[in-house]
Amino acid sequence: MENLIIIGSGPAAHTAAIYAGRAKLNPLMFEGFNAGGVAAGGQLTTTTEVENYPGFPEGISGPKLMVKMREQSVKCGARIETVTIDKVDLSKRPFKVFAGSKTLETKALILATGATAKRLNIPGEEKLWQKGVSACAVCDGALPIFRNKVLVVIGGGDTAVEESTFLTKYGSKVVVLVRRDVLRASKAMQERMKQNPKLEIMWNTEAKEISGNKSVEAVKIINNKTKKETTVAAGGLFYAIGHTPNTAFLNGQLELDETGYIKTNSGTTYTSVEGVFAAGDVQDKRYRQAVTAAGTGCMAALEAEKFLSEHSS
Amino acid sequence: MENLIIIGSGPAAHTAAIYAGRAKLNPLMFEGFNAGGVAAGGQLTTTTEVENYPGFPEGISGPKLMVKMREQSVKCGARIETVTIDKVDLSKRPFKVFAGSKTLETKALILATGATAKRLNIPGEEKLWQKGVSACAVCDGALPIFRNKVLVVIGGGDTAVEESTFLTKYGSKVVVLVRRDVLRASKAMQERMKQNPKLEIMWNTEAKEISGNKSVEAVKIINNKTKKETTVAAGGLFYAIGHTPNTAFLNGQLELDETGYIKTNSGTTYTSVEGVFAAGDVQDKRYRQAVTAAGTGCMAALEAEKFLSEHSS
Repeated sequence: MENLIIIGSGPAAHTAAIYAGRAKLNPLMFEGFNAGGVAAGGQLTTTTEVENYPGFPEGISGPKLMVKMREQSVKCGARIETVTIDKVDLSKRPFKVFAGSKTLETKALILATGATAKRLNIPGEEKLWQKGVSACAVCDGALPIFRNKVLVVIGGGDTAVEESTFLTKYGSKVVVLVRRDVLRASKAMQERMKQNPKLEIMWNTEAKEISGNKSVEAVKIINNKTKKETTVAAGGLFYAIGHTPNTAFLNGQLELDETGYIKTNSGTTYTSVEGVFAAGDVQDKRYRQAVTAAGTGCMAALEAEKFLSEHSS
Repeated sequence: MENLIIIGSGPAAHTAAIYAGRAKLNPLMFEGFNAGGVAAGGQLTTTTEVENYPGFPEGISGPKLMVKMREQSVKCGARIETVTIDKVDLSKRPFKVFAGSKTLETKALILATGATAKRLNIPGEEKLWQKGVSACAVCDGALPIFRNKVLVVIGGGDTAVEESTFLTKYGSKVVVLVRRDVLRASKAMQERMKQNPKLEIMWNTEAKEISGNKSVEAVKIINNKTKKETTVAAGGLFYAIGHTPNTAFLNGQLELDETGYIKTNSGTTYTSVEGVFAAGDVQDKRYRQAVTAAGTGCMAALEAEKFLSEHSS
């Protein structure tokens, strides 16, 4: 019987492991094997330089930061297995976690399986990923490669409007490609968008291909009504078409919100099942930063520790 | 007119500065001069080794971590002034911040002034601070100096019970000094406490003096009814008598909870005044960790950025 199993491998999972390890809970972490389509370490492994994680004034590469966090988890006493969990049974305590052919029982569970940014999988995307192609304007927008360049944003919701507005701080111009002839963003946001001289919306427009040598140089677009193709010279392309929280493995056993994120009691990591805690992007569609994920990972460990001390007898 | 003033100097304030700087808000930070009774850098400057801030597997000293964060804030574009703010006017926007003889106006304000752990100021405390004397069991309990030692905890509330229970993982025995003949902690907690063979409560007992050469070796105690003095051989002393949030300078202009902490909309950094955001320990009496403070600092900057973009015209 395990005290505490942690599922995930990003900043939330490792911060939970660090705190739970130090609290002598002897936590077991399943970091997954390419779970959610990314390497162990989570979404930060798909980034290059991280300049906004506090404590590293010179910046640190995403993969390197995650290697450090993993090392710290192990040092604090966490055991880590590189197995993807695709099934759990939360119907009663102890909970069951199915790891390949093994079934484990655990008194408490921290879910930090993250979310995966949606992409279009168009030609050039894979080659130029993090070389001008990004799925996070807040994370990457300030990087030097985007300064005074034309930047293309794909998406029509609130996030797309927020991120494109944000990017006007850095780019010479921001072109927003909207697939339909209307934005899903709120009216107020659309108004502010119109007042921003650096923003241009292209309606009924989709990206077809990204090209560039060492980094993004152009985006080929198509008007899906007229079928006319053109090429926009651009130094960056940002996806703002949402994220998919990695909650399918829960199979409806926890309360999720309408977009599939785990619901937590606001300001805590408590989920709809007592003894199950959620941290990081799997429960956060608002902030989604490494440091906010780490913060909630810490909260989950402290709350799991409290739960276990109250249910030890 | 400033866009954004940040008051504070700990992980919350610096993370807010890093994010606000990168978002080109040109933030101005007042780190204070020994504000709240601690050096710029906040409570971490009163600790020695920090082992639980994710990203530093070898540990990092509290002051060193804060030097790094400060360097990062400056690098990201924050301006920092070493002046303590003891008065603000939040009655209308722009808000007014009084910095010595200067009055500044700002469109938005992030408050991250922290909290100060209460101490008793008994003889030996200052000399042995962080040499066995601590005000945070979760932060310091796992340090080697406390292993298999008798540990003394001072306090009678929920926190004292939680922290003393936590410390039984490390110490050979934990002695809780309760000033009165009753605990303020909940009944359920008291029950669990009784079942823990490593915990001993001494009623009507107060600490009078801490002694030791290089680290804590003994605590002189007095029974406040019988006036009998004894000495407990102990390797550590933990204060769990609460914190004082640094909110006096607000002079009642923001909604506070019953213990003086700034009230935020749960899961956000929004305060009762639009355009004023609170992050870190000044609004958190529950988690109080460097990484949770940093997480809320990031949230505050993102929320201030959104507020400013919505109120820029």
